[in-house]
Amino acid sequence: HGGDVYTYTDMTDFSVNGNPFGPAKAVVRAAREALDAMERYPDSRCTDLRKALGIRLSVPEDCLIFGNGASDLIFTLVFAEKPKKALLPVPSFAEYERALRAADCRIKFHFLREEENFCLTERILDEISDDLDMLFLCSPGNPVGTVIGKPLLCRILEVCEERHVRVVLDESFCEFACETQGDTMLREALDSGGCFLLRAFTKMYAMPGLRLGFGISSDLSLLERMERARQPWSVSVPAQAAGIAALEETGFVEKTRAYVAGERSRMQRELQKLGIRVFPSDANYLFLKSEADLFHELGKRKFLIRDCSNYRGLSKGYYRIAVRRYEEDQRLLQALTEICGG
Amino acid sequence: HGGDVYTYTDMTDFSVNGNPFGPAKAVVRAAREALDAMERYPDSRCTDLRKALGIRLSVPEDCLIFGNGASDLIFTLVFAEKPKKALLPVPSFAEYERALRAADCRIKFHFLREEENFCLTERILDEISDDLDMLFLCSPGNPVGTVIGKPLLCRILEVCEERHVRVVLDESFCEFACETQGDTMLREALDSGGCFLLRAFTKMYAMPGLRLGFGISSDLSLLERMERARQPWSVSVPAQAAGIAALEETGFVEKTRAYVAGERSRMQRELQKLGIRVFPSDANYLFLKSEADLFHELGKRKFLIRDCSNYRGLSKGYYRIAVRRYEEDQRLLQALTEICGG
Repeated sequence: HGGDVYTYTDMTDFSVNGNPFGPAKAVVRAAREALDAMERYPDSRCTDLRKALGIRLSVPEDCLIFGNGASDLIFTLVFAEKPKKALLPVPSFAEYERALRAADCRIKFHFLREEENFCLTERILDEISDDLDMLFLCSPGNPVGTVIGKPLLCRILEVCEERHVRVVLDESFCEFACETQGDTMLREALDSGGCFLLRAFTKMYAMPGLRLGFGISSDLSLLERMERARQPWSVSVPAQAAGIAALEETGFVEKTRAYVAGERSRMQRELQKLGIRVFPSDANYLFLKSEADLFHELGKRKFLIRDCSNYRGLSKGYYRIAVRRYEEDQRLLQALTEICGG
Repeated sequence: HGGDVYTYTDMTDFSVNGNPFGPAKAVVRAAREALDAMERYPDSRCTDLRKALGIRLSVPEDCLIFGNGASDLIFTLVFAEKPKKALLPVPSFAEYERALRAADCRIKFHFLREEENFCLTERILDEISDDLDMLFLCSPGNPVGTVIGKPLLCRILEVCEERHVRVVLDESFCEFACETQGDTMLREALDSGGCFLLRAFTKMYAMPGLRLGFGISSDLSLLERMERARQPWSVSVPAQAAGIAALEETGFVEKTRAYVAGERSRMQRELQKLGIRVFPSDANYLFLKSEADLFHELGKRKFLIRDCSNYRGLSKGYYRIAVRRYEEDQRLLQALTEICGG
């Protein structure tokens, strides 16, 4: 996985996809102050965070569930539901498959096609059979970064509801997607009882070290089953405090989104000039294809990127890089110019 | 569960069992400083913490597994093992039963007897049948607080190994037990491949809000299955840092243990003088029986204690109180004197 700065020390980390500006000061401060209460058990209901997020998203509080990062909720969901057979478009975030395998679930892979830029298309609809229990989707996708169009998503939700297939829609990176892409699927997910929407504080608020993710569903019995499938104290005291503070940071989010949109376009153009294939992205990262061994070549130059060859559905030659701050991106482009003999 | 200071506000909390002195300053400081790295993913292998704990316990590093609190590891273990039938002495910590039920495991309850002070006895040996997959033990027990004697524990491990029953031995409170009780079962657990020893930083180091527990087993394939049954980033950046700092606090631990032993004896005597039945305890809490409705009566006086009537195997009239600092304990005794008309 990305972000393993513990193995690859002293490198500029382009392998994870956090906010390039790091965490907002008020968020760090809130987490820090919350440590005064580390001798208390966390609030098992996340009462204050729940209230704040419910208001921010205009979502009923009981439709929310919090976890020790979004990845924690993936495992909790799968253990609570115990699906027998799941449909999984690939390449995608590795934890979906890991969780399904841990629960002995059979997996039908739906291979996304390079000639379609690894985007989900209507082809998926033919794969949604009655014998499925669960479908994992990711929008913006990971590692590729494209948002799945709303009309297609709505059609998928419809078909899945007909065929009693639970849709898990991972929108962990949705705050980075251009607003012109329209809203996320929040309302539609709430309207469709079968949908579980997964979101995270990790990415936009740059707090993966603190672990805070959440899920949204109008299927309250699902959320109840999930609560029964885990300990009551999943979300730490500092994570809850940081989350509450993060929700105040609307300016920070807007600034980030605007910056990322511009910098992503610039990086796309610059990379293409170097002969690197860059796939379309709506997120804060770019998916690349190159003949050159970018992971090792950049590694020599102290840049850590995500080698995507171990993703199911991919092979050697695919990479993911984060959109970072301008100066860091410039240094990366400089290194790539050397490597690609630009 | 205990420690719900979010529902019961402005009360002195005798319902949870942490270190009465709160967290050591160096531990809070370490967690605080670690927040500078909150934009990094946690080290999924807990490399530094693993090294430090391995040295402290003289345990091979690969025999350790860390979790988001000990309770997290209970669920991970059960989901990894998927036991079909488990033996559970009761009353005991509620999360064992919750985890087993979430994994659809059948449970055979072994009822501890009041006339035996709710202590585990040799009677358990007759219950360890071949059809069992798992046995949960807790020493010191929770809510009662007694250590299971080493000869009995060794006999249980032996019988369980013969009959291929995994023993989960929860020693979350072992650091509080008198040293005269002898060592914990660390060596025996490592010698017996079938044993999983559960420990926590939560209690002795007063950091339940940060979530850090660990397990010890020489069954490396079990630990590997557990790693596969969860996300890679369970233990947050501040929890890992706090854990490393905590391991330096040997003086703090000794001071706490000595204080708790003395104060527990004093409390036992004082409570008995009030006509309250106090069960023997080796831990930092006391299990009580009283005709008076201590939970409500103390609640009126702004003391929160653990009403144990919702423990399986118990009924109304049982309570658990923590051993806290002398002045707080005195105030509690004062209130109990009023209530019991002493």
